[in-house]
Formats: sequence, structure tokens, C-alpha cells
Amino acid sequence: MARSANVLGDGWILLVMRQACLGTRRFEDFQRLLGIGRNILTIRLNRLVDEGMFAKVEYQQRPVRHEYRLTDKGREVYPILAAMAAWGDRWLTGPEGTPLVLHHTACDHEMHAVVVCSECAEPLDVREIQAKPGPGFPRRRKQTSSTDS
Amino acid sequence: MARSANVLGDGWILLVMRQACLGTRRFEDFQRLLGIGRNILTIRLNRLVDEGMFAKVEYQQRPVRHEYRLTDKGREVYPILAAMAAWGDRWLTGPEGTPLVLHHTACDHEMHAVVVCSECAEPLDVREIQAKPGPGFPRRRKQTSSTDS
Repeated sequence: MARSANVLGDGWILLVMRQACLGTRRFEDFQRLLGIGRNILTIRLNRLVDEGMFAKVEYQQRPVRHEYRLTDKGREVYPILAAMAAWGDRWLTGPEGTPLVLHHTACDHEMHAVVVCSECAEPLDVREIQAKPGPGFPRRRKQTSSTDS
Repeated sequence: MARSANVLGDGWILLVMRQACLGTRRFEDFQRLLGIGRNILTIRLNRLVDEGMFAKVEYQQRPVRHEYRLTDKGREVYPILAAMAAWGDRWLTGPEGTPLVLHHTACDHEMHAVVVCSECAEPLDVREIQAKPGPGFPRRRKQTSSTDS
């Protein structure tokens, strides 16, 4: 989670990713639709390319123009954004109602995201989760490790 | 999503929330476990109290001491963090493996978070989602609205 937070813990990154998930690919469109400064947008787009979440692809040669396409890694951020939207609809929405309605073409229903357990498919409740150090837990490796410092 | 990003699009906010979900409640514990400066932590804790995600509760009178307890609104951020962790495990983890293993006490299995459709329970894929303006869509209200500007 800490590593994910390092990438996703930025408001503009989340908004650029959301916009990409809505189909936006071009610099000028991101800028116009998000109302974001060119420098701020450039930094975020470069970051997302560096992180492998966008592929920068030439779509025109004279003059050279690029667009930003979601990679598989980027596309799989969408469920996180959908979970954020569901939380926002529940806790941040006033009497005006939800800003965006989501339609699932796979089942042809209006829907919202639900985060469930991979094993029992029940919605997650933090009071039913225990976290324990895994093999990649930082700085507290097994006592037998010769790489401890 | 934009409103959620306004609250959650901050790396320290995400890490403080994650730590709270692991059971941390006290200022000194947040500071020690996150390795975060006092000023930075104070700003984040105050923000989370203001947003109604933490309740600041007195647990000792002489001297007065407070702790920060997750509210329902704060607790329901956990599934978002779990979805981020699952994405991180899939896309950011090297050969060392996952840093944290999650155990679901409700079903007694090691598990990861999956984001699914509320209607058909299938995992979400952005290519199967259509978003359309809902009643609270900003700045492009219905033409008949007398509050248009």
C-alpha cells in the first residue's frame, strides 16, 4: 500500500488517470477537461509514462504529435478509482446526487464498485482483516537473513 | 471521484489512514511508525478530523491526551486502501514478494481485495464501464435549471 500511495497519493495523478479512463488521450484534451496548468500536467504525464501506466505513442508525424494510452498497469488502476467514487457517493455527496452514473455494459446495469474478498466474495470490513508481514516486508527480514543491517 | 481525490490524493493521508486501519490511534505512535514530521502529521490528523474520518477522543485527563479513532466514514476508506495494495502487489512488487499478507477472519483465508460490480459481482474492467452525467454533475446542469450561470 505504501508503494501504491507513492504513485497514487497525488490529486492530479488521480484526476489524470480518471480522465484517461473516460477515454482522454491527448495533452490538449487533458488540459482543457481538467483545467490544469501545462507544467503541472506535463509533470504528471511524464510520471505516468515513467511508471509504465501510460504509453506515449506518436499518432501524427508532421508535425509530430503524441497521445497517452493506458497500459494494462494503468488500466488496472480503474477499479481503485471506481472504489473511491463509490466512497465519495456515499460520504461526500449532498442532496444534488452523484456527479457520474456508471453503467456496466457487461451486465447492462447501473452500478457502483464494491471491494470484496478474493476468497469468499464478501465486502471487506477493516475489522475483519488481519495484516501480517509478508516475504517483502521492509527492514524486518527474517533473523536468518545475511543481508540484515 | 474528483471529490474523493481531493481528500485521498495525498500520500501522507493515505499512509495515516492505512496506519489507523492497522490499529494505530495515538499521535506518538503514528509519528514513530510512519517516520513522519510532527508538523506534517498534525496537518494530516487535523484534516482527517475536519473531514469526519477521525474522531478526536480524550483518553486521559492529567495531562490531557487525545487519540484518533476511525469513524464509519474513515473505516470505509479501508477497501480503497486494500484495492491499492492489491494493485501494488500485482504491479509494483519485485521478487521479494508482498510486504503484507492479509487474512480475512470472516472466512479464515489469506486473501486480496477485488473490486467488483454491485449488480453482477464480476470484477470491473474499465473497457466495460460507461460513465454518464448524474444529477450532481457539476456546471452542466439541465438546460431547464434556473440556476445555470
